[in-house]
Order: sequence, then structure tokens, then C-alpha cells
Amino acid sequence: MSTTTSPSLSGGEPEIVIVGGGIVGLVLALGLLRVGVKVKVYEQAQSFREVGAGIAFTANVIRCMNLIDPSVPVALRSSGSVATSNGGAEDPDDYLRWIDGYERHREDPRKQRLFYKLSAGPRGFEGCRRDQFLESLVKCIPSDVVELKKRLETIEDKGANQKLLLRFRDGTTAEADAVIGCDGVKSRVRRILLGEDDPASRPSYSHCVAYRTLIPMAQAIEALGEYKATNQHNHVGPNANLLHYPVANNTMINAVAFVRDPNKWSDDSQTVAVGTRDDVKAAFKGWCAPVRDLIERFPDTVSKWAIFDLWEYPVPQYNNDRLCLAGDAAHATSPHHGAGAGQGIEDALCLSTLMREVVAETREHPETKAKAITAAFRTYDAVRRTRSQWLVNSSRRVCDMHQQAEWADDTKITKAETVFEEMRDRTFKIWHFDYEAMLKETLQGYKQRRGWANGVVKNTLIY
Amino acid sequence: MSTTTSPSLSGGEPEIVIVGGGIVGLVLALGLLRVGVKVKVYEQAQSFREVGAGIAFTANVIRCMNLIDPSVPVALRSSGSVATSNGGAEDPDDYLRWIDGYERHREDPRKQRLFYKLSAGPRGFEGCRRDQFLESLVKCIPSDVVELKKRLETIEDKGANQKLLLRFRDGTTAEADAVIGCDGVKSRVRRILLGEDDPASRPSYSHCVAYRTLIPMAQAIEALGEYKATNQHNHVGPNANLLHYPVANNTMINAVAFVRDPNKWSDDSQTVAVGTRDDVKAAFKGWCAPVRDLIERFPDTVSKWAIFDLWEYPVPQYNNDRLCLAGDAAHATSPHHGAGAGQGIEDALCLSTLMREVVAETREHPETKAKAITAAFRTYDAVRRTRSQWLVNSSRRVCDMHQQAEWADDTKITKAETVFEEMRDRTFKIWHFDYEAMLKETLQGYKQRRGWANGVVKNTLIY
Repeated sequence: MSTTTSPSLSGGEPEIVIVGGGIVGLVLALGLLRVGVKVKVYEQAQSFREVGAGIAFTANVIRCMNLIDPSVPVALRSSGSVATSNGGAEDPDDYLRWIDGYERHREDPRKQRLFYKLSAGPRGFEGCRRDQFLESLVKCIPSDVVELKKRLETIEDKGANQKLLLRFRDGTTAEADAVIGCDGVKSRVRRILLGEDDPASRPSYSHCVAYRTLIPMAQAIEALGEYKATNQHNHVGPNANLLHYPVANNTMINAVAFVRDPNKWSDDSQTVAVGTRDDVKAAFKGWCAPVRDLIERFPDTVSKWAIFDLWEYPVPQYNNDRLCLAGDAAHATSPHHGAGAGQGIEDALCLSTLMREVVAETREHPETKAKAITAAFRTYDAVRRTRSQWLVNSSRRVCDMHQQAEWADDTKITKAETVFEEMRDRTFKIWHFDYEAMLKETLQGYKQRRGWANGVVKNTLIY
Repeated sequence: MSTTTSPSLSGGEPEIVIVGGGIVGLVLALGLLRVGVKVKVYEQAQSFREVGAGIAFTANVIRCMNLIDPSVPVALRSSGSVATSNGGAEDPDDYLRWIDGYERHREDPRKQRLFYKLSAGPRGFEGCRRDQFLESLVKCIPSDVVELKKRLETIEDKGANQKLLLRFRDGTTAEADAVIGCDGVKSRVRRILLGEDDPASRPSYSHCVAYRTLIPMAQAIEALGEYKATNQHNHVGPNANLLHYPVANNTMINAVAFVRDPNKWSDDSQTVAVGTRDDVKAAFKGWCAPVRDLIERFPDTVSKWAIFDLWEYPVPQYNNDRLCLAGDAAHATSPHHGAGAGQGIEDALCLSTLMREVVAETREHPETKAKAITAAFRTYDAVRRTRSQWLVNSSRRVCDMHQQAEWADDTKITKAETVFEEMRDRTFKIWHFDYEAMLKETLQGYKQRRGWANGVVKNTLIY
């Protein structure tokens, strides 16, 4: 795959470059290696230590990881992932809880009403630090597969039976039969695939910011009481919501204040800014005592993340010939479902399954490699686009439900609470994903496109 | 149940008054009679001939009807209900179809893109005229059960072990152990149950009007072409949508133009007004030729229905002691899912099942009648409220999806189309309702409330 390799596409196993060494890129690399693809991963960062945020996966997504490569869930657990629940033996399930964050002038100002609770089952979520999971994943991958400090500039298509040529900012090049962009929300591959003028080539501001901080458990208990501090809670109210859950073996809580922002974001190349505790206090004015007391314990300055996503301009197609997009590059979402990375894992399972078929076909018929890869990417687009773009929409909708203005209006509380049935349906659609059905659809779709089976591949009808 | 009956509640089978002789009231009456309840239905109208609109039921709802009383689906079919599909033998399924209604300046201006299609299965819907179904239902009910021209004024609760006293506008009275309000969107029982000051005692304007008309099939074919004219289609576009389907043995189409209206509705006692073809033309300016041509074939004046629902102020609880609400009285919805009456049938199945238990218990322990009825109504509220209020929300959401401003913006079409996954989920939640699970939950909830089983009845938690 160096520049001295023959540029002809035919012969040998498929050679695929993954652009981006985030979680989706590395998990996909493991999946492709396992089915016999020659893989290179090019990552622009200097190391995997750069981003230390936390990340959690549902039990369903961990089962998908296991199908991609059993070393993935092993890596997750060896990176110190823990179930996010602190339930005792009598109820070990993980839950999501939505609690009334607004001031109701109760006799006991520390009491809050639990609006809704959903069980994700035992070990329903496992959380870890993103950088630690990345390091564990890298250890599973042969050392010559991943290259750091490689910032992609262009991809050149030299013709149907030629390899694609990638050029990096450092002047080096690489070749591949196909390229998969796992390069995140600001994906370079997406801009190459769609062109700079397509509005979907860049994410848009979701008009919501997230203030994030860690708070020592003792202080969190002072503010919230022991039960609320040691268990996940999402406090909902007008134009904001406050999510927190215990981390670091219950020694701290991770607190995230989501706040609606009607303004434009001034600089979309710089999406993390410095916020202050006073900003957060202003956004949660009129909320109940436990919420206000917790915010009092925020540091003077907190990081303020502008949330960008692909809701406003979704990618019309995830593939084009021998290029395709996966994970945030394809469908960057706001984080309100906590399910963005999980969608990328589902993508990786679909792509690995397809490439297993391509490898098998290419072994018999080396000359069909380009067509097989193109059919695989088309199938991937048909299978994954609807669900992953649904998630982007759903996450926005869930934010609207969390932050309804109605929470502040006593006459509208009944209406506001009617959203939880929808919340449950949306959450269960994510948690209880039938990936076996997805795999069946994937294989059928590929076979149809390769002409091995009857049946028509769905097209948009004009009449 | 006349005014000379003893007012004491104890002894004998439960005596229930149903206020309102619409479809839900009459179906519920059949269900209650079947389980051994003494039933009276009081309807304010002069006859069942008053409203002649069409109505359709899903296959799932027809199965619920059959569980309530097998005479109900027989009455439906004897009233001339037909499957709404015109599919041939090769594809007899009923479908919902969403089609691009906006002008795209195609080479052939009569072509439109089919955005999405959902199969409801063979005989997935059966449609009939509302008045004919009512007449068929009445024929199944003993003649002394239903009284017309009875307009309810008040319900007096004379104490825990006394019968409720109903007073009608004509000066007559009636007594009952319990009262179920099936009296529709403008329910009098709802106002009595909640009090006049509760905003949920009256429906609110949904800011959408429906222009309805029938058009001869030959004219519809001229405008739409044969396939579109003879099959259900929903044309979507900015701030409006146009739904049509064949009726009257394919001799006509029923066309409904839904139009967003940002204004207030001037008189909420008068929700049907006279509209003009020019109003409709103005709302569909910029739409494609087939839609415009169909509207040209609307009569000069068309009826204009203001759509009112209980979305903005949902009923906080469907029961209070021995009063309860069912159907539109409990959860009047906008018609965008075409599922309002079906929800009322599900209510009737739940209530019939509960009253079968009450009858059985009362036979053994006549002194518990009041408590048993109260527990039944509480269970009904717990089982039915969430789903039926979800539908009210969902119908509003579906209207927003049909009428997205994005349909008129070429750069936003990809985004607009991503809603169809949600449309599918919402529609399937209605069509594939697990009524067996509902019945199980109903029986369990009743037994728990009557102290026959372990387990805690869910309460809102404050901590």
C-alpha cells in the first residue's frame, strides 16, 4: 500500500484505507482485518491521548462489537469500563431517569419529582474514558496498520481499475482499492465525497451548548443528596437540562449542563470555548434548590462545547463509487441520546460483514474487485442511512423534549409529561436494535446488487 | 334505572350510563351488555343520520372489536365497509403513500415522486360511512338501551353508597352506579369531571383546517391519472397536505386538503364553516400540476373544518371516582393518523374487560360494588391514558412532518425525507398494537388495586 505498489486494482485481497483513528475507525480496522482485508488507518492526531472525555455503550452495541471482533469488548473492559449503575444486588439494572428540575416551591425544597425511569437491564451501559479505550484498541492492531500525524488533503480517482491515491499534508501519499472516512464530525473525506459547495459537507450548529465538569462526590452529595448523586439523573426544565452520573469508581460525578442558545456560533472552527459558572447559573435561574446547589459547586470556569451535527443538512448518500463514510463522518449527531458512537459501531458491523463477502468473491474472481466494493458500499448506504439519520433527528427531538418551555408553566405540566411515551419508544429503538435483521438485510442487499438473487433493489419511484 | 329505582348502590349487577351514542358509546354499550352490565345510552342528537362523514378502521382495531363483541365487526361489514385498497390479485394489500406534492419543474409536469409507502396488509383498512355503521350498531342493541334527544346537564354525586343522579336539559333524570362519558370532543362529562375552569375541559384549535369534498372518479383521473386517482395518496408540501382515496365503489374520491392556519379560530362553538375553492387554491400555490388540477375540480364552496384537539391541555386523569371518559371525550385528536376512533375502540375493549371483572366480583360480594367500579376506572386510566395521549401528540407531529416548510426548499429535501423512518415507527405503533398485552396489564392492574395480587401500583415518586 506504499506509493511503490502497483497501482492496478486487480488481484490480491482488497486494500482499504480508513481515514481517522477514532473509536469507529479502530473498531472497523479490527473488523476488516478479521475478514481478510488489508487495512491501513491514517489519523491526523499526534497520539491517542488528546481527548479524555467519557463515553458509554449500551449492552446491544457491545454485542455488535463482539460480532465485529471479540477483542473489541475485551479492549473495552480492559480499558476500565464499568457499568454506570450503582444499584445493589436487589436491583442491579442500569436506568435512565428524568427528574423535575424546575422550582415547584415544595415544603421540602430538596425534593424533586421523578417523571420517568427506563431500565436498560443489568450492565445496560458500560462507560469508560475515550482515550483509554482507544489505547486498548490500538494494542489489538498490528503496529504497522495505524499511522499517526497523517492529515488527509485529497483523494484522486485515477480510473475504474486503478487504485485511489491519497495525498497527506506532509507530502506523502498512499494508495488503496477503497477509502472509508471515519474522520468525525469535521470529516475531510465527507468534503471530498460531496464537494465543498454541498451544505452537508460541513456540520451546523444545533443551537445548544454543553457545559461539562467533574465534581467530587462529597460535594455532589451535599447538593443532591446521596441517592441522586450516586445514580444517573437528567434534570429537565425550560430551555436547559442537567445530566449527571457517577464516574471514577463513585469518587466524582460527571455533570453536563445543556443550554439552548438562540444565537449563531461565532467561529465554527473553534467549537470548544471557556464558559463560566455564572453563565450556567443564569441559564438555570428559577430551577430547584438541588440543581442550583450543584451548579454552585461548578468551578469558576468550565468548558463550553458548541454542539454541531448533520441534522440540518444530512448527507444525501454515504457512498460514492469506492469512497464511503462511517460514524460521525456520515451522521454526526448531537449527544442527547448518548448513542452517537454506538451508531458508528453498528456501521462497522455492517461494513465488516460486507467486506467479508467482498473478500470471498474476490478470491474466486479477482477481476470483480472494484464492482464488488462498489456494491458493498451501496448496500451499506441502503442499510445504514435511514436509521443513523433517524438518530440525528431523534437526538434533536429529545433535546426539545428535555427543554420544553412548558416545564415552567404549571398549567402545561400535564402536556409536558405526555412526551415520555415517545421518549421510551425512541430510547428502545436504540437499545433494542435488531442487528441480526440488519445483517440479514445486508447480505441480501449485497447479493441482489451482485446479481446472485432475485428481487428488486428499492428505488425511488416517479409516476 | 328510571328515577323511581331505589337510589342505593348495593345489590344487583352494575348499572352504567354511557353518555353519547357515537361509535365508541355504542360499541362500549355492546361490550358492557355482553359481560352482564345493565346499560343505558343517552344521546343528545335527534337521530343517527346527522353526520355522514367517512371513517376507516385498521385490521388491528377490527380484531379489538371482535373481542368486545363479535356482533361489532359484523355490523361494520353489514354497513357496507370495504377495504380501502384497489390493488389487484397480485398485490391486495392496503397502503399508505406519501408523494411529493410540490412543483419540481420536471420535464413531464404530471410526474410526482413517491417518497414513501407503508403496507397495512390485506384488508389493512376498512372504510364505511359513519352514519351507516351507527345504524348497524343500533340494530344489535336492545331497543330500550339507547335514548335519543337526551342532552346531559349535570351529574350529582349523592354519597359513596348512593347512585349518581344525571339531569338532562328536558327536565328528566336518570340514575346509575357509574357514568362513562363517550360524548366526543366537546364532552359535557369531561367538563363535569374536570370543572369548567380546567383548561382541559375544552379542546383547543390545532391551527389546521381541513377542506373536504367528494370528486367524481372521471374528473379525478383527468387530474391525477388513473393510478393515483384510484389509490390512496397523501401529497405533502409546505404548510399543507392533500389526502385522497377512492370511495363509493370507486365512483368518487374523497379529497381532504389540510392547511396550516396561524390565526385564531373566531368561534369555537362553530367549528365547521364554508370555504371556497379559491381559499384552497391559494394554500396550494406553487404545488405540482396534478394537485392544482385536482383542486380546480373542487366545487365553488367546500366545507371547512377547524380541527380542535386535546393536545395543548390533555386531561390529567380519565377517571374520578365513578365517572370516567372514553374516546374523544378523553383524548380528542387531530385526524392526521386516521386513528382517533380506533383509540376509542381500544378504550372500549379495556373497559369491557374491567367491567367483566366487576360483575364477577359484585356477584359474590355485592357490598363492594362502588369500590370495584372505582378500581376498574383507575385501572382504565392507568392502562389507556399514556397511549391515547401519545396519539394526540403524534398526530400533531405527523401533521408537522406532512407540512414541513422544507418541502419547498431544494437544499432541504434530503432533510425533509429523513422523517419517514419516524412516520413508519409512529404508524406501526398504531397498527401493530399488542392488545393482548394491554388486556393482561388491565387484569393485573385491577387485581392489584383490589388487593388480590402482590406488586405495587406505579406511583409518581418524589425524593
